[in-house]
Amino acid sequence: MTIFWPRVAVLGVGLIGGSMAGALKKHRLAGHVVGFAPDGSAQEALQLGLLDQATNNLTDAARAADLIVLAAPVMQLPALLQDLGPLVANDCVITDCASTKCSVIAAAQEHLGSAFSRFVPGHPIAGSERSGPAAAKAELFNGARVVLCADERCDERALDQVAQTWTAVGARVSHSSAAQHDRLFAVVSHWPHAVAFALSAAIANSDVADEARLAAGAGLRDTTRIAASSPSLWAEILLDNRQQSLRAAHEFRHEFDSIVAMLERGDKAGLERVIALASGWRRGVQEPTIFPKSL
Amino acid sequence: MTIFWPRVAVLGVGLIGGSMAGALKKHRLAGHVVGFAPDGSAQEALQLGLLDQATNNLTDAARAADLIVLAAPVMQLPALLQDLGPLVANDCVITDCASTKCSVIAAAQEHLGSAFSRFVPGHPIAGSERSGPAAAKAELFNGARVVLCADERCDERALDQVAQTWTAVGARVSHSSAAQHDRLFAVVSHWPHAVAFALSAAIANSDVADEARLAAGAGLRDTTRIAASSPSLWAEILLDNRQQSLRAAHEFRHEFDSIVAMLERGDKAGLERVIALASGWRRGVQEPTIFPKSL
Repeated sequence: MTIFWPRVAVLGVGLIGGSMAGALKKHRLAGHVVGFAPDGSAQEALQLGLLDQATNNLTDAARAADLIVLAAPVMQLPALLQDLGPLVANDCVITDCASTKCSVIAAAQEHLGSAFSRFVPGHPIAGSERSGPAAAKAELFNGARVVLCADERCDERALDQVAQTWTAVGARVSHSSAAQHDRLFAVVSHWPHAVAFALSAAIANSDVADEARLAAGAGLRDTTRIAASSPSLWAEILLDNRQQSLRAAHEFRHEFDSIVAMLERGDKAGLERVIALASGWRRGVQEPTIFPKSL
Repeated sequence: MTIFWPRVAVLGVGLIGGSMAGALKKHRLAGHVVGFAPDGSAQEALQLGLLDQATNNLTDAARAADLIVLAAPVMQLPALLQDLGPLVANDCVITDCASTKCSVIAAAQEHLGSAFSRFVPGHPIAGSERSGPAAAKAELFNGARVVLCADERCDERALDQVAQTWTAVGARVSHSSAAQHDRLFAVVSHWPHAVAFALSAAIANSDVADEARLAAGAGLRDTTRIAASSPSLWAEILLDNRQQSLRAAHEFRHEFDSIVAMLERGDKAGLERVIALASGWRRGVQEPTIFPKSL
């Protein structure tokens, strides 16, 4: 009882969309995969063997699709959903891959009309500091986590089909409310990116920027790895999840200020306490293999 | 013309001291390696095959040594140097492994008397979030960088011998002034640790601490990896290099505040600018294989 989609449209074929297209083809989950992009990236993905067809015409891509996967940058999704609204076929299932969920759900509800019941909000946790179709690979979701944020307005069959599709490409599916998701991912992803950006930018602006590039040990390389991410993508994600990002920023600042104050007054016991808290939390971080079914 | 030390005393046999002892034995650079620790860790290191002899008597360890390697936590070094002063044999070379250099050099000058000219300040860049003799391994310094901070007060022969020893265990030796070193390592190591501590502590104190442990993706796991480090060690390092840590904290805070302000006012172009700066710097970070001879 394998899931099969006769015709899939992937809208946006960068790292995530390109990988999803490639995975659907590799696992024979789709009869025909068409990729849409307003720029040349769909052609590039076609040449890389990730697609059966490339187009920059949204109507061509969407009209006869059984499954539409939205994989464009998060800030383009409202306009894309608006354009998509009149094109969605009866019974077509729609899902997305954005890192934030509340704003996408609101836009989908506004623009998809009755098809909104078949919109299954999704977030594959499979980012990378690399981007674009050249970074895509059919194995990207193998072992990755995907959080689906369907609520009671969502058709159960559509939800089940999207979950089955993710499972078939090797991902593990969790379920969460959109609000919980956006809070959690501000804490575990969006704000940590901002911290890595601030840390790298501070070094880049310092008098030792060049030496630091050469002297960076494994610790700094790890701590700043995600700072190499796409500026436009991450500006959009942070802004899209602005309220929760600022809440996480506020929480971070509290700890930051406390560490600086302890350092200023030479409070060794206080520093040890906060580092022990940090260290204890970090040592309990689970490797992805034991990601739970429900968040 | 290989360097050879008839008798080496390693004072402090945790990750760094234990690894140095093991490396000296493995590469046959020492006739006899005695490890000193006030607690049971020297016995543990002996049982692990890293030492020829374990003692908790500093006089026994230091008296006849040709080379003394200080590898105790940085805040214990002043007291250790004070005890060591009267024990150092004529012509004995002394080096250390501390992450900060100005404070150790001041303590060595205060306590070592005429032997100070044979004190070669060193910093192997080979930390880990693990600690203790069980984490030690003879290969730890293979390919690692070691920064030596000798100045005009240092005997050239002693400097040369210490440099040769590090080279013989596989490390690449760089030279720097102590002040430059402490500034650079506040920026590339000490302060990034504090940032990782603040980030992990903020998550640990949040309402989603448990879910975050399960939902942490590769990005957060990398960004917080060094937050699992030893609380006492890192409280001491940050305090020991307090002035430079606070300077780096100030520079970080400037970028942090700027990102928060941009987020609050919805300044997408500004966010893209700072992320592009961060991303550009990070993409230029060199892998350790091309570490330069001079910083």
